[in-house]
Amino acid sequence: MGLIVQKYGGTSVGDVARIKNVASRVARWKGEGHSLAVVVSARSGVTNELIARAKEVKAQPSDRELDVLLAIGEQETIALLAMALHDIGVPAVSFTGAQAGIITDDVHTKARIRQFRPGRVAEMRKCLGRGEVVIVAGFQGETEDGRVTTLGRGGSDLSAIAIAHALGAESCQIYTDVDGVYTTDPRIVPGARKIPELSYEEMLEMASAGSKVMQARSVEFANKYGVRFEVRSSMNENPGTIVKEEDDGMEQVVVRGVSLDRNQAKVTVAGVPDRPGVAARLFGVLAAASVNVDMIVQNVSASGVTDISFTVSRDELAKARAAAEPLVREVGASGFSAREGIAKISVVGIGMRSHGGVAAGMFEALAAAGLNIQMISTSEIKISVIVDEANAEKGVRAVHDKFGLGG
Amino acid sequence: MGLIVQKYGGTSVGDVARIKNVASRVARWKGEGHSLAVVVSARSGVTNELIARAKEVKAQPSDRELDVLLAIGEQETIALLAMALHDIGVPAVSFTGAQAGIITDDVHTKARIRQFRPGRVAEMRKCLGRGEVVIVAGFQGETEDGRVTTLGRGGSDLSAIAIAHALGAESCQIYTDVDGVYTTDPRIVPGARKIPELSYEEMLEMASAGSKVMQARSVEFANKYGVRFEVRSSMNENPGTIVKEEDDGMEQVVVRGVSLDRNQAKVTVAGVPDRPGVAARLFGVLAAASVNVDMIVQNVSASGVTDISFTVSRDELAKARAAAEPLVREVGASGFSAREGIAKISVVGIGMRSHGGVAAGMFEALAAAGLNIQMISTSEIKISVIVDEANAEKGVRAVHDKFGLGG
Repeated sequence: MGLIVQKYGGTSVGDVARIKNVASRVARWKGEGHSLAVVVSARSGVTNELIARAKEVKAQPSDRELDVLLAIGEQETIALLAMALHDIGVPAVSFTGAQAGIITDDVHTKARIRQFRPGRVAEMRKCLGRGEVVIVAGFQGETEDGRVTTLGRGGSDLSAIAIAHALGAESCQIYTDVDGVYTTDPRIVPGARKIPELSYEEMLEMASAGSKVMQARSVEFANKYGVRFEVRSSMNENPGTIVKEEDDGMEQVVVRGVSLDRNQAKVTVAGVPDRPGVAARLFGVLAAASVNVDMIVQNVSASGVTDISFTVSRDELAKARAAAEPLVREVGASGFSAREGIAKISVVGIGMRSHGGVAAGMFEALAAAGLNIQMISTSEIKISVIVDEANAEKGVRAVHDKFGLGG
Repeated sequence: MGLIVQKYGGTSVGDVARIKNVASRVARWKGEGHSLAVVVSARSGVTNELIARAKEVKAQPSDRELDVLLAIGEQETIALLAMALHDIGVPAVSFTGAQAGIITDDVHTKARIRQFRPGRVAEMRKCLGRGEVVIVAGFQGETEDGRVTTLGRGGSDLSAIAIAHALGAESCQIYTDVDGVYTTDPRIVPGARKIPELSYEEMLEMASAGSKVMQARSVEFANKYGVRFEVRSSMNENPGTIVKEEDDGMEQVVVRGVSLDRNQAKVTVAGVPDRPGVAARLFGVLAAASVNVDMIVQNVSASGVTDISFTVSRDELAKARAAAEPLVREVGASGFSAREGIAKISVVGIGMRSHGGVAAGMFEALAAAGLNIQMISTSEIKISVIVDEANAEKGVRAVHDKFGLGG
């Protein structure tokens, strides 16, 4: 049987009892004849504690030294998990990100993986060949010249997928607190079903539509290198959701799932003089302030002025306002208004490419449920709308029903 | 001005306030025009916490994984100290043991430094050349093939001396909670004086005589590579004690200092058949059980049996008993007895080589003070005696006076 890469997050390794639980799970897979490489995060809370301690020393610690500090979180977990495996008789050996040969660029605290040192990959293979479980610290790597780096949010998922690629693993299991990707949030629609298989693009669109399961960058990396992975729960043994290359069968399902993102705020810049370059300058200053703009709608110009609306995540609203207001005054727009009580409903499915009428069906369902649509945005395999937050769950249920996603 | 290596122990970097204090001290030396490389330990208590957590996972954790775990203690300190220096405007960059190029053997948890990776030393020099303070994690290194190792007790002192050697430092300052090496413990003899200069051999003999200032292995390393170092206090700015190659002036002082070691237990194996090989077997089983034997005395044989007495540190007495008793029975010795209420007084000085009468003077002083000598052992530059613990301090005062060491 082949090599499996498993990734356990901070909650799964949160204390000694949980680390021992992970060790038993790993031992069970090993007992079935698999080779295992296990990627782990820092114990939940540790990274925040370390950041707090750094800020006690210096309000704005250097990213380079912050990485040296943060990397100790996963280094602790790999050693403890190796010991827990030894304790139940399973040979295991730990690797920090650097020891695993993960080379990144030098953008500290959000580095990108560039390649692997072949000698270190060979070393991991040698350990696997001897029947040892290889344990790798997630979230970290080193620069070409040996400086510690960390990969930023979702970094451990990224490590797992990269390790699976480097070792040519048969599968990569991402253990989380949900047991897969659902057609929609089961807390909103009790009849929501787990999706057995999903294409990378669908998973990407669901991530950008507000699904908390995985960061888009890990899915992009998997897509780029064709690493098939499975989202599973560390609390049970249920099969999860497999994310892989699109195949023929996938297109037959028009809508794969419905997402709800409540973390949205809508900004309208009204009375913008309708001349070339104004929108570019607006989104330029927002980008310069690191505000991530999601949906953008510009109304048709009438009488030489236009309104531009866009959405940002709520925690970036203040930043967006600070960045945009000077420009609003400068170009002589009539005002900047923001609204927080909104939410985004999205339907995602690669079948949309070959099936028409999805947008119409979605709008019908929302209208029948009495919801007013404030903004619309579409991509090749996703349709998103902004509605009042108060009615958003009703809208999700209506759309989920409309496309027959229930059990 | 040249390069100074400074080493700060766990108490000196015990919390954020103390780390900031170390940063100001470093900044002050830097402000005087020196280049600085700073070696730090883990915050006091951290190493013990980590060991406790490891033991929760596995009663006997593997030394290899224990090293991966323990190394995070110093990695935390180097990052925090770098941040503290940045906070007061001093450029600084951190290096783990591996990043500093410290290569050790693979005896995990008590590795020996073998050499430095030249490329990493060049990197440290480059940073120093740019005016950056180089901060190195003490107590750790890596094997030739990249496994994390730790150096065992006193390891950070060893790191500092090795770094001073590798970088060709002008001086190496070991900061401790005492401000130097004294002629004897000032709590016993208020008139004890700080010794301005000491040879490596005297420092070694004082370490083995119970001085807590430094582990013998660090002094041995300094001696081997001719690294001059200074023991200083991190609480004040007083000059400390410089330890260096013996020079002509040093021999003029016959006795450099008087040490007292209370952590002694005396074991007597009585009625040992006086035939060849019995003593060898006795000390063989003790060595196999990792019992460090200090002084050994064998009485003159009478009537075919003999008594062998030796001293061990008190915490190894149980281990010594367990190792020796089966042999005592096997060889037909009449008994094994142990005594804890004893102490060792030693006088040390390279001047003894060329000056006779030191032993006689010491014994006279002890006799005049009413002390009975239970065991005697001598080396080229040290004389040690075992006396009752109850009178030991009186003995130290008498010997200190006798050789005119007071202020």
